[in-house]
Amino acid sequence: MGTVTISLQRKWFAEFIGTAFLLATVVGSGIMAEQLAGGNVAIALLGNTLPTGAILVVLITMLGPISGAHFNPAVSVVFALRKELPWDQCGIYILFQIIGGIIGVWAAHLMFDDTLLQFSSKVRTGGAQWFAEGVATFGLVFTILATLRARADAVAMAVGLYITAAYWFTASTSFANPAVTIARGLSDTFAGIRPVDVPAFVAAQLVAGVLAWLICNWLLQDHNGEPSG
Amino acid sequence: MGTVTISLQRKWFAEFIGTAFLLATVVGSGIMAEQLAGGNVAIALLGNTLPTGAILVVLITMLGPISGAHFNPAVSVVFALRKELPWDQCGIYILFQIIGGIIGVWAAHLMFDDTLLQFSSKVRTGGAQWFAEGVATFGLVFTILATLRARADAVAMAVGLYITAAYWFTASTSFANPAVTIARGLSDTFAGIRPVDVPAFVAAQLVAGVLAWLICNWLLQDHNGEPSG
Amino acid sequence: MGTVTISLQRKWFAEFIGTAFLLATVVGSGIMAEQLAGGNVAIALLGNTLPTGAILVVLITMLGPISGAHFNPAVSVVFALRKELPWDQCGIYILFQIIGGIIGVWAAHLMFDDTLLQFSSKVRTGGAQWFAEGVATFGLVFTILATLRARADAVAMAVGLYITAAYWFTASTSFANPAVTIARGLSDTFAGIRPVDVPAFVAAQLVAGVLAWLICNWLLQDHNGEPSG
Amino acid sequence: MGTVTISLQRKWFAEFIGTAFLLATVVGSGIMAEQLAGGNVAIALLGNTLPTGAILVVLITMLGPISGAHFNPAVSVVFALRKELPWDQCGIYILFQIIGGIIGVWAAHLMFDDTLLQFSSKVRTGGAQWFAEGVATFGLVFTILATLRARADAVAMAVGLYITAAYWFTASTSFANPAVTIARGLSDTFAGIRPVDVPAFVAAQLVAGVLAWLICNWLLQDHNGEPSG
Repeated sequence: MGTVTISLQRKWFAEFIGTAFLLATVVGSGIMAEQLAGGNVAIALLGNTLPTGAILVVLITMLGPISGAHFNPAVSVVFALRKELPWDQCGIYILFQIIGGIIGVWAAHLMFDDTLLQFSSKVRTGGAQWFAEGVATFGLVFTILATLRARADAVAMAVGLYITAAYWFTASTSFANPAVTIARGLSDTFAGIRPVDVPAFVAAQLVAGVLAWLICNWLLQDHNGEPSG
Repeated sequence: MGTVTISLQRKWFAEFIGTAFLLATVVGSGIMAEQLAGGNVAIALLGNTLPTGAILVVLITMLGPISGAHFNPAVSVVFALRKELPWDQCGIYILFQIIGGIIGVWAAHLMFDDTLLQFSSKVRTGGAQWFAEGVATFGLVFTILATLRARADAVAMAVGLYITAAYWFTASTSFANPAVTIARGLSDTFAGIRPVDVPAFVAAQLVAGVLAWLICNWLLQDHNGEPSG
Repeated sequence: MGTVTISLQRKWFAEFIGTAFLLATVVGSGIMAEQLAGGNVAIALLGNTLPTGAILVVLITMLGPISGAHFNPAVSVVFALRKELPWDQCGIYILFQIIGGIIGVWAAHLMFDDTLLQFSSKVRTGGAQWFAEGVATFGLVFTILATLRARADAVAMAVGLYITAAYWFTASTSFANPAVTIARGLSDTFAGIRPVDVPAFVAAQLVAGVLAWLICNWLLQDHNGEPSG
Repeated sequence: MGTVTISLQRKWFAEFIGTAFLLATVVGSGIMAEQLAGGNVAIALLGNTLPTGAILVVLITMLGPISGAHFNPAVSVVFALRKELPWDQCGIYILFQIIGGIIGVWAAHLMFDDTLLQFSSKVRTGGAQWFAEGVATFGLVFTILATLRARADAVAMAVGLYITAAYWFTASTSFANPAVTIARGLSDTFAGIRPVDVPAFVAAQLVAGVLAWLICNWLLQDHNGEPSG
C-alpha cells in the first residue's frame, strides 16, 4: 500500500474484527472439540490448538498492513514503548481489542446455540499458572520482536506456530493476551477462565511482555549500540 | 505466464477439476476418517480437516494462474461484483463448479466402493447453523479479499488455514461454498447434508459473501477513497 | 547452483538417499503409530500421515536442485516423456529409487528391532483400490506439473500437502509411486502391501501418471499452442 | 543486518535462550500431552510432536541471524569442521546450549508445579535405539547442510518438518541432539531418558553428524571439485 495513509477508523476496525475472529476461533473450536472428543482432553486440545494457530497466521497476514495486527494489549503496550504507536492510540487499540474479543465470544455462543452471556467457572490460579503465563507472554513478545528484525514477512507464521507450541508447553495453555483473557472469562466452556482469576493472568502477561521488550532491546540492537526499536 | 491469454475452455476445466478434487477430498477423507475413528468424532473431524486444508492450498496454488481458482460460486459472484469476472462467465464458472463437485463426490464413492448415487440424511438446519454458515462465508470472502490486497502470493495458504480453523470454530463445520453444499447433499456419509437443508445454507453463504465484499470495499480502499476492487 | 553441472553419480545418489528416507519414514512411522495407537486406526493413520507429508517437503526442497527429487518412477517416466530426462537416465533413476526404497524399509526394520526381510500379508486389491491408486497418481503428477508451471518454488510444499490429503481421501491411502509400492511389499507392518498385489497398483499408477501428463499438456500450454513441457 | 557485527555475548545468549525454549517445549508439551491423553501414547506423541516442530521453526527463524541458531552441539561441531565456527567458540556454544537446555527443563517443571531436580528412569538403550539415533542425527545434519545449499531461507522450515517426521519414524523418537539428550536426562516425565543411557546416545549422534558432513562434502561440492563448506 506504499505511502498511502490508512485512516484511524480502519485501523480500529481491523483490531476489532481480528480480535473478534481470534476469540470466535478459540472459544468456538473449544466448544466443538470438547463436544466431539468424548472425554479425551488431549484430543480436545488438539482440536483447539490447530484452529487457533491457523487463524492467527491468516489474521496477521491479512490485517497486518492495516493496523499492525496486534489483537493483544500486551503487544500494543510494547509497540507504544517502542514509540511505534502513540499512547493515546494504544489506549484505543486496547479498547477495540477488548470489545472485539467479547463480540467474538458471543458469536461463538450464538453459533453453538448457547447462552449469550456466561461467566466461566474454570479455576486457573496459583504460582505455577502465573509463571506459565509469564513464560508464554515473554515468548510471544520475544517471537514478534525478534522475527520482525530477522525476517519481517515471517511474523504471521511465527506467531501462529509459537501459539501452537505454547498451547501445549505452558501449563496454562498460553492465554498470553489480556484481551483474550478478559473475553474468555465470559465463556463457561472449554476455553474459559473464572473472572476472578483474570487480573493475575493479565498482570503476569504485562510484566513478562515488558521484560521481553527490555531483553530484545539489548539482543537485537545494532553494533553501534542503538536499540533496534 | 505474463501476457499470455488463457482460453476460456481451460479456465472452465480448471474450475471443474479443482472443485472435483476438493469434493473428492472432503467426502473421501470424511468416509475414511469415520470408518477408522471407532466412534470418536473429534478424531474423525481431524482426519477430515487436515486433508481439506491441505488440498485447498495445493489446488489454489496450482490452478490460480489459470482460472483464479474460485471453486466456489460465492467467490465467483464476489469477483463479478468487483467487475473482475464478467457476469456471463460467472454463470459458466458456477455451472462447472457444481458439475465438478458432483463428479468429485461420485469419485469418492467409487474409490470407497460405495453406491454412486446417494442422498444425505444428515440434518443440518436451524438459526444457529445458518448463522454459523454466514460467519464461515463472511470470514472466507474477507480472507480472500484482504489477503489479495495484503499479500497476493499468500492467498492459497490463507484459504487453506482459514478453512482448517473454520471446520472447528463454526457449528456447521463451515461449508461456506454453495457448490460444495449442493454436492455434499449427494453423499450419505460423514460430510453429507440433507438436500432439503441445502437452500438455506446457500442463501446464508451468498448473503454473507456480499456483506464481506461491502465491508472490504471500505476497509481496503485507498486513502483517496477509491474502492480497492 | 547456476550453470554448474552436477555429476550423474550425485544425481543417482540423491534419488537413492531421498527414496530411502521417504520409505524409512513411511514404514517407520507406520510401525511407531500402530504400536502406540492402541487399536485406533485413525490415530495410527494420523501418525503415519504427518511424518510422510513433512519429510516429502524436506526431501524435495533439499534434493530438488541436485536430481529433481523424483523418488518415484511414475514421475521419472513423465519427465522422460517431457524430454527433460533422457530415457537411459530414467531407467537408472528408477533403479536407484527401487534400491533406495528397499534400503529405507530395511533401515526402518532395524531401528524398530524387527526382522530385516519380510513380505507383507496385507491384502490391497480390487477395482475400487486400483481406481483409488489411479486418482492418487493422477493428482500427484497433475500437482507436480501444474505447480511447476504456476510457482516452481512451491512444488515441495505442494507435493507434501497433496500426499497429506491423499493418504485420507483415497481408499488405498495413496501409494502413488511404484518404487514405494515395491518397497512396501517388503514390510509386514502397518504400511505393507501383499507382493502379489503390487503389479496392479504399479500399472494403475503408470497409466494415471501418463494421463495426467496428457491433460497437463493441453491445460498448461501457452496461448500459441505450444505444449508447456 | 548487513555488515553489522554481532557481539559474542549476544550470540551466546541466543544459543542459551533458544535451547531453553526448545527444551521447555519438548519437556513441557510431553508433560501436558501425557497428562491429558488418558493412556493413549500415540495421542500423547502427537501432542509432543506438533509443538516441538512448530517451536523449532520459530526459534531458527528468529535467532538464525544472531547465532546461526544451532541449539545442538552436533550441529556446532559440524560448523566447526566446516571452518564456519572457530573451535573455541564451538566449545562456548556447547556450554551455553547445555545450560540453556537444563534451564528449559527446569522451567517446564516449574510451570507444571513439578519437582525441580529430577532424574529420568526411562530406559532407552540397545543397538536398535543407537542405530535410530544415528539415523535421526544423520538426517538432521544432512537436512541442514543440503537445505542451506539448496535454499538457505528454508532451513528453519526444513528442520521443523524433519523433526516432526523423525519423532515418528525413528524408534528413539529422535533426540538427535546431545544438549537435548543431557537435559532430558533431568526430567522423569514423558520425554525423559535415564542418565546412564545418555552417553551412548550422544556418541551415536556425534558419529552420525560427522558422517553426514562427510557425505554432504561430496554430494554438495561444486563442479570443479571444491567442497561446498
